[in-house]
Amino acid sequence: MERIGLIAGSGQFPIIFSREATAQGYAVYVVAHRNETDPVIEEHVAAVEWIHLGQFKRALRFFKLNQITQTVMMGAIDKTRIFRDVRPDTKAIALAVKMLHTHDDNLLSTVATVLEDEGIRVRSSTFLLPHLLAPKGCWTRRKPSKSETDDIAIGWRRAKAIGALDIGQCVVVGGGSVLAVEAIEGTDATIRRGGGFSRGGAVVVKVCKPQQDTRFDVPAIGVQTILTMRDAGATALALEAGKAVVFDREEMVALADRHGISIIALSDGEMAG
Amino acid sequence: MERIGLIAGSGQFPIIFSREATAQGYAVYVVAHRNETDPVIEEHVAAVEWIHLGQFKRALRFFKLNQITQTVMMGAIDKTRIFRDVRPDTKAIALAVKMLHTHDDNLLSTVATVLEDEGIRVRSSTFLLPHLLAPKGCWTRRKPSKSETDDIAIGWRRAKAIGALDIGQCVVVGGGSVLAVEAIEGTDATIRRGGGFSRGGAVVVKVCKPQQDTRFDVPAIGVQTILTMRDAGATALALEAGKAVVFDREEMVALADRHGISIIALSDGEMAG
Repeated sequence: MERIGLIAGSGQFPIIFSREATAQGYAVYVVAHRNETDPVIEEHVAAVEWIHLGQFKRALRFFKLNQITQTVMMGAIDKTRIFRDVRPDTKAIALAVKMLHTHDDNLLSTVATVLEDEGIRVRSSTFLLPHLLAPKGCWTRRKPSKSETDDIAIGWRRAKAIGALDIGQCVVVGGGSVLAVEAIEGTDATIRRGGGFSRGGAVVVKVCKPQQDTRFDVPAIGVQTILTMRDAGATALALEAGKAVVFDREEMVALADRHGISIIALSDGEMAG
Repeated sequence: MERIGLIAGSGQFPIIFSREATAQGYAVYVVAHRNETDPVIEEHVAAVEWIHLGQFKRALRFFKLNQITQTVMMGAIDKTRIFRDVRPDTKAIALAVKMLHTHDDNLLSTVATVLEDEGIRVRSSTFLLPHLLAPKGCWTRRKPSKSETDDIAIGWRRAKAIGALDIGQCVVVGGGSVLAVEAIEGTDATIRRGGGFSRGGAVVVKVCKPQQDTRFDVPAIGVQTILTMRDAGATALALEAGKAVVFDREEMVALADRHGISIIALSDGEMAG
């Protein structure tokens, strides 16, 4: 039985992966984060090691003990918690020092490099779930209007630039103005804030950072995103085709259709042109 | 008696200018914005025309009627109101069309161009008040710490890039991460949000957009900024020397000193280097 490691954050993504990998015959060994990862994950896997954010040494020891040679990383970590309850162990401090030396701001890519140095291959979070990647095109009955399309174009350029600065993945645009930019607060809070400043018609643009290692931290979208948009009065969502993971797509699209929200997945090539 | 026009937004800046210009022998003709401009402005000027946001034709007629050939523009307009109670007249719609054609996202620079086309010179908002511009150096007893200095450098690069995208002037940084980016919500809301995500030690960086017409819309800072920082737990403020207008500087610095907040004004040259 093939073994695979999973470094899990919050949300459905790690649960869905565990279920699918188990169904495909993998034994899944999970490093789960306390107060982040859904405990339901214990039902579908070979073993779970619960850690606090920053206990990298424990994670590594767990993988070694279980002869793990390949792993995936997925699920959000609430970045605002980094300032509250991180417990960095010596390995985590070594990681931070490495980040200082390599000038790589991206914690996950540093973690991946260290794992690979330790002989543990880091695979793409979607390698067993390619069917979850956002398909190109408009998914909803309603296509974006002319003014929404204009706002999406404005937002796309801005979101890519903000991603390049390693700030966030999401912007909200209305009437040609950027209403909100995501930094550490997360996508839902950004949508709520931006929507509150529009008089209806705000669009949400969520993209991959240009420099993003697409093995992990791909934007994830689902029913919750549409619920937040509905409450905030946002009317259109633009994603990057093939570079966003979509959960419960049918339910999500049905909900969007019910509220007249438009969802479209575009390629960066056509938007940059 | 020399006449000068003033297109006034909110805050102290238009009041201070009116007082100073009157003291220096100018007759000041003010276009004031309802729900934005402080009515106290009526005490210090030759005449006031109250308009709703977007009533550009009325503003222009008022200036022509009073033979105004030079004007200044100053004071914030709450951008979130653009989506609520703007009343665009035909001139304002012509302005919007002009912005579409010139691809100039900056409303104020378009307004300035139209005013100059009509024979009304737009002067720098600080031309009578050069003593209000931020002097270079550290103003407070406490200098920024090493980690605050690092965060200021990170924030400065990001803030300049975000300004270049015509999004906002301010970012909040803590522990090397961008905690909040200003879009339409304004500086105080950005400081409150970013401060809430830090565990103390957040820095606030407020700069001019690289492409900004420095005749108007220069960042303005005052006692309120320090009060907001204190409430949000932000500990250092970095400004652009010579490119920010500072109100009640003595009182502001005294307040900052009382709360251990550091204020420093830097030049873009030294930060870009």
